[in-house]
Amino acid sequence: MIDHATFVGEAVRRLRAEVPGTAIVAASGGIDSTVAALLAEKALGERARAIFVDHGLLRAGEVERVREYFRASELRFEVVSAADRFFSALDGVVDPEEKRRRIGAAFIRLFEAEAERFGTDRLVQGTIAPDWIESGGALRDTIKTHHNVGGIPADSRLTLVEPLRDLYKDEVRAVARYLGTPVADRQPFPGPGLAVRVIGPVTPDRVRRARVANAIVEEEVERAVAAGQLGRPWQYFAVLLPTRSVGVLGDNRVHGEAVSVRVVESVDAMTATAMAVPRAVLARIAERTTRELSGEVVRVLYDVTDKPPATIEWE
Amino acid sequence: MIDHATFVGEAVRRLRAEVPGTAIVAASGGIDSTVAALLAEKALGERARAIFVDHGLLRAGEVERVREYFRASELRFEVVSAADRFFSALDGVVDPEEKRRRIGAAFIRLFEAEAERFGTDRLVQGTIAPDWIESGGALRDTIKTHHNVGGIPADSRLTLVEPLRDLYKDEVRAVARYLGTPVADRQPFPGPGLAVRVIGPVTPDRVRRARVANAIVEEEVERAVAAGQLGRPWQYFAVLLPTRSVGVLGDNRVHGEAVSVRVVESVDAMTATAMAVPRAVLARIAERTTRELSGEVVRVLYDVTDKPPATIEWE
Repeated sequence: MIDHATFVGEAVRRLRAEVPGTAIVAASGGIDSTVAALLAEKALGERARAIFVDHGLLRAGEVERVREYFRASELRFEVVSAADRFFSALDGVVDPEEKRRRIGAAFIRLFEAEAERFGTDRLVQGTIAPDWIESGGALRDTIKTHHNVGGIPADSRLTLVEPLRDLYKDEVRAVARYLGTPVADRQPFPGPGLAVRVIGPVTPDRVRRARVANAIVEEEVERAVAAGQLGRPWQYFAVLLPTRSVGVLGDNRVHGEAVSVRVVESVDAMTATAMAVPRAVLARIAERTTRELSGEVVRVLYDVTDKPPATIEWE
Repeated sequence: MIDHATFVGEAVRRLRAEVPGTAIVAASGGIDSTVAALLAEKALGERARAIFVDHGLLRAGEVERVREYFRASELRFEVVSAADRFFSALDGVVDPEEKRRRIGAAFIRLFEAEAERFGTDRLVQGTIAPDWIESGGALRDTIKTHHNVGGIPADSRLTLVEPLRDLYKDEVRAVARYLGTPVADRQPFPGPGLAVRVIGPVTPDRVRRARVANAIVEEEVERAVAAGQLGRPWQYFAVLLPTRSVGVLGDNRVHGEAVSVRVVESVDAMTATAMAVPRAVLARIAERTTRELSGEVVRVLYDVTDKPPATIEWE
């Protein structure tokens, strides 16, 4: 493990070298990009501006939460509302890779416009080592097209600056703690947001269902952790499946979708273990999900697969 | 609860009244139709013939197991091989109700041919009370189109004889035990077989996957029951989902299907509870399924929903 003061000093020096004028920072509210934004703030002061995009695919309360974190961290930031643009970009798209490409392209177009507004061509991103390793570094196959890697087209006016590209997740967490930001212990949240937790078509209605289900999983898991019934997971979330099955609602039958719940332990996201969540906690998640999304979701499944062979997220 | 000797005497009398000549019995190897076949054998002797259809949608080893049960029960029976006919009937069908209609129609055509061969128009079926109650008896909505209810078209030459139509599942089990058949403690298996456990297109390849997954669930659950780690479930099985997700195989990524595992307690199938299967048992099921179906299935989910709001089977 690196020495934090040395790493931060190094990163600040490199950021100043790579950014002669101003820069914008792609800030998702996740730990990686928040650390990148903090380093940019440290290196560039008012020459850096964090841009938080509300793409309509965020978790319940996410915009407010991120505003709070950023204010507490004394970051200079702006919130850009762009839900319509992202839903249009995703209209009719089912293929996971195509979803990521569309979202990546929408992000790039949006950041290009913001960069122009801010008079710069530098985009600071929180890319970390597993992102580019899994995206086809070296001789590996491409595990996943990360929306924040390789998404910059050749003709773009933007130049990427990636201060965390040599770090692994646990190292980023350590740096975050060293910098004293409250996001240090936040669970990872994918850049494409709930879009990768909505398998099949991404519509406002289906994103709403995934949002409700994710909020329930977060609340119940956090309650169980607080009550000492469960260790703190690496990541915990819900995925909306397009598979319909039969349910019973009163005397009527309904055809509803299914929700898959994922709660994993991990050190660096390269491998992960599905946790032994107590039956009572899963029962409460199932009961709340099928009640709060009555008639829309009739079945709740718990993902018992480790990584490998499954990845943590579905897409 | 009825008196078993009285019920059997009554049923034999009614069968003799309703079947003046010969009859065939639709015998799936499940408990309901086996009890119906035993009653027909008792009432009609060699005038009855049980017909077991190998529709290509059976569980691993099912044909051999059913032959053995029927021989042990001293039933007169025939096995009809018809996998090609059923796969043709299901070609391109995805809708669950349409699957059941196609399978029901294929059964009827096959039984009509068998009835003609046996010189009769009487078809004895093991319909029980929840089948017709859930299929739209009284003012209820149709919960499910049971392949063995209402599937006889108006122009058919067949007349249905249903000796168990007033019984619930626990009563059928009791009668089976009274008759001394080894199927008394078998878990229920749906008439349409693995077709309703293959969500989406029913191809020989996908049925093979569902067959492997079901065999693993049965073996591991039975092992856990024998080891005292789990009470005896009402029903336990695997469902193949068409939903693909990302997996990791060595250094490569794969897109595989998912398997949902269902293990429920119930008294009469009208309500059911998802059981608290030990984490180690689920881990073994996940490990074996993703290994024995390597690259085809990358994710295993445990269904934690009770009935209601979900049904026991998915379709």
